[in-house]
Amino acid sequence: MTKAAFIAGDWGTTRLRLYLCDTDGNVLARAEAGGAAVPGHADRFAAAVAAWDAAHGKLPAVLGGMVGSTIGWREVPYLHCPAHAEALAGAALRFAHDGRSIAIVPGLSCTAPTGAPDVMRGEEVQILGALRLQPELGRGRHVFCMPGTHTKWVVVEDGAVAQFLSAPSGELFEVLSRHSVLARDSGPVAADSEAFAQGLDFARRNQKADLLHLLFSARARAVTGVMPKADAASWLSALVLGKDAASAVALLDLSGTVRMVCTPALAALYDRALVPYAVQSAVLDGDAAALAGLVHIQAAMTLNGWR
Amino acid sequence: MTKAAFIAGDWGTTRLRLYLCDTDGNVLARAEAGGAAVPGHADRFAAAVAAWDAAHGKLPAVLGGMVGSTIGWREVPYLHCPAHAEALAGAALRFAHDGRSIAIVPGLSCTAPTGAPDVMRGEEVQILGALRLQPELGRGRHVFCMPGTHTKWVVVEDGAVAQFLSAPSGELFEVLSRHSVLARDSGPVAADSEAFAQGLDFARRNQKADLLHLLFSARARAVTGVMPKADAASWLSALVLGKDAASAVALLDLSGTVRMVCTPALAALYDRALVPYAVQSAVLDGDAAALAGLVHIQAAMTLNGWR
Repeated sequence: MTKAAFIAGDWGTTRLRLYLCDTDGNVLARAEAGGAAVPGHADRFAAAVAAWDAAHGKLPAVLGGMVGSTIGWREVPYLHCPAHAEALAGAALRFAHDGRSIAIVPGLSCTAPTGAPDVMRGEEVQILGALRLQPELGRGRHVFCMPGTHTKWVVVEDGAVAQFLSAPSGELFEVLSRHSVLARDSGPVAADSEAFAQGLDFARRNQKADLLHLLFSARARAVTGVMPKADAASWLSALVLGKDAASAVALLDLSGTVRMVCTPALAALYDRALVPYAVQSAVLDGDAAALAGLVHIQAAMTLNGWR
Repeated sequence: MTKAAFIAGDWGTTRLRLYLCDTDGNVLARAEAGGAAVPGHADRFAAAVAAWDAAHGKLPAVLGGMVGSTIGWREVPYLHCPAHAEALAGAALRFAHDGRSIAIVPGLSCTAPTGAPDVMRGEEVQILGALRLQPELGRGRHVFCMPGTHTKWVVVEDGAVAQFLSAPSGELFEVLSRHSVLARDSGPVAADSEAFAQGLDFARRNQKADLLHLLFSARARAVTGVMPKADAASWLSALVLGKDAASAVALLDLSGTVRMVCTPALAALYDRALVPYAVQSAVLDGDAAALAGLVHIQAAMTLNGWR
């Protein structure tokens, strides 16, 4: 077994994914712990890596994501776009805690195509990782999409994040399914259902209608018997995803191939929403991208003397 | 005191408004009780009118709203549009319960401008009432708007409801403010705030962006310090209301004067959202319209022998 050299941590709002890595960034062990939304970061981190500490001593740790936000362990200021992915290592906040070197990666901020400020924490590490895993993406213009609670559409030009746009697609679907009457008494989302396919089509055909004026159809279709109640969540999910794609097409130039950074299943859903707009997509695994980004940041900092 | 002749009940999801009326529809007394979402309608109704029963005997009751839905007392099928407001009385479900004559008004269904089925229960009674209170609206084409949990935009032609469109504006704002991170730690909505005015303007300028791609600005503006956290709910509310107006302008012909059926305060908010689109609005009190509708339905049924 090669020697453990550092710990990489992808610390989002709801989950911390930890990797014990050797000098070359190979993963020797994995662990999971609670997200950055819960206080007590230092203690929770210590508990999560206690077994590794016992075996290898207190290895340096590189952490990315919401751990650097106002609700995180230490706040790290955003880098403002355009920001080169390679700049993340140099802007990481470095500190010592309880005999361990810790680095927290900054997030990015920009002015979105809507004119509003926008922010990300964690996706910038995935972008960097994607550019390391597929170096050809470091040249020219490429659009990345990280679907999730707060979906990000990201324009990368010659390896620099030029601009991005957030949509709370996952969060909107969650709060509407759980707390509104729109998908009451529905079954779970079935992405291979007729309702999902029809919902995507309905969202696309209604180009002039805002999502707001499509949502009630989830209830009205069930109430009038056009659709079984059990299908309401699939329909609702398709509306949100369909309008996420449609609005991104309207606001960004999606020519070329959109790089979906997520699970294959989620990428397949977005692909179905994008194809009717003649937009191609390809998938990169989100966890692998985050790990590759953290590993690269550690390597870059180590080159500059960080231990 | 004139003699009590009947009871009118505006029974929505969350509240029952009861009116004790004389033969001419003048209100002699008022009462309130719980909404139609709670089971046990017959018993709850009996309890709410027990004092009136003791004084006047068991008077006939005309009820409108969600009381006629699948979650109501008795389900009354929808009338499909185009439906003349005067047709509501003839289509009311009449039954006797515990020695009392009861009539429940049907709701309306239509195919919305989006192509989806749409439904209403309660607003049709307000439309009828508005046409009784302002008879000149019974000729020609008029657009009504009932903002609320499920906002309705309604096209009335020569006294008949031709088509309508629902938007869950109130519900969307509620679930996002309570259950998402978008307006976390915000103060209440201040309609006279700079944030509200700027939010309306932001929604209007971003014509190509779906509401979905504007929502995250509520959080990003607060996180980046562009806006105090306390203003996030005002900003979020303005986005929803602004896109409700913008999408209605895009989907319906709003030329003429939109008749807002609601409180003056809510009508004033929509007026601010509509004015930049050169759309005029006027307000009719929502409770008064509902009462006038129920009173007219009772009178029409009584003319046809209902007791």
